[in-house]
Amino acid sequence: MARAKRTGRRTGNPDTRSEILGAARRLFADEGYESVSMRRIAGEAGVDPSLIHHYFGSKDELFMAAIELPFDPAPEVEAALQAGGIDGAGERLVHAFVRIWDGAHRDKLLAVVRSSLSKPAMSFVLKQLFEHRIVKTVQATLGDTVDHIPVRANFIASQVFGLVVARYILKLEPLASLGEKELAETIGPTIDRYLTMPVGHLTRDS
Amino acid sequence: MARAKRTGRRTGNPDTRSEILGAARRLFADEGYESVSMRRIAGEAGVDPSLIHHYFGSKDELFMAAIELPFDPAPEVEAALQAGGIDGAGERLVHAFVRIWDGAHRDKLLAVVRSSLSKPAMSFVLKQLFEHRIVKTVQATLGDTVDHIPVRANFIASQVFGLVVARYILKLEPLASLGEKELAETIGPTIDRYLTMPVGHLTRDS
Repeated sequence: MARAKRTGRRTGNPDTRSEILGAARRLFADEGYESVSMRRIAGEAGVDPSLIHHYFGSKDELFMAAIELPFDPAPEVEAALQAGGIDGAGERLVHAFVRIWDGAHRDKLLAVVRSSLSKPAMSFVLKQLFEHRIVKTVQATLGDTVDHIPVRANFIASQVFGLVVARYILKLEPLASLGEKELAETIGPTIDRYLTMPVGHLTRDS
Repeated sequence: MARAKRTGRRTGNPDTRSEILGAARRLFADEGYESVSMRRIAGEAGVDPSLIHHYFGSKDELFMAAIELPFDPAPEVEAALQAGGIDGAGERLVHAFVRIWDGAHRDKLLAVVRSSLSKPAMSFVLKQLFEHRIVKTVQATLGDTVDHIPVRANFIASQVFGLVVARYILKLEPLASLGEKELAETIGPTIDRYLTMPVGHLTRDS
């Protein structure tokens, strides 16, 4: 029972579950989220593919479990962007981001970020999360009105990751003590600029 | 001789040197850069204060050695800011920053940042470096023309730390492949905004 605690509610057989997670981490890190199938992970773990569905549901859910993220950030991003389109999108994104980080998941998120920033294999996995969940969500939500979303998302990420470092890791003052509203008003316009400035010269995508 | 390599050019007695560094790290982390004297560090290390001066020179140099930073960033910040005052300061800072990171020190800097972000005691030391070297340098250089520098420096740091994470740790593309000029043109205006926007409502300093 001591091990079952780590595996969440659907515990099942902890050995099978951790075999699957280990195989998923290795394959996602080596070959990338997109190119690895559930069948492939099952083969690597030496289990029947139906067991992965049984334990984890979808590939996205398996991915979140593999990187030990307490929830999927993509729906939060989608909700913040869809609430009013491009106008004020930066402020809404910062509000959502700070609300999540200031909430119950902070310690768990901090653990994921610390390990992602210190271990190269985990950095690669965080990069995959960003590229295959966040950028795609922004593309699906704003793709009709905003061009060159991948490079814009890179710069937005640079500001948002830096907010995590400054506020939650280094705890710089007074930034670490500011409220959600002050942060959204200060950083939101930076994100809006990255969403709207001309960036064609920075990218080869279409 | 195997140990001498880690201790740089002025090797001296590696035991004495590492005793001093260990004492400095502990005291800087526990009590802060400002409140710890060289004499105090000498006492903690059990050596004569003159030995610290002999091995490390100034308190600043001891601090850089204690956090294993390959060079002092303060003069770079000072040069970038003094070159033309507040106009275009953001672009010049990003140019200087990317030039340093894209240069010979990258691996060493990355090691310092990785350990600072993953180990809380090292995070505290990086915070001290920021507060007692960088913020003070900005204050000394721009303090006559810019108010509320500490809170502005917090937001600038959030963008600059995030650039490190996005470009050098996660290696997000296309950002990681962009040149110094493109990064300075894109991120410089963000820093200029943090240097010039009204921030009185975010701070209690004067």
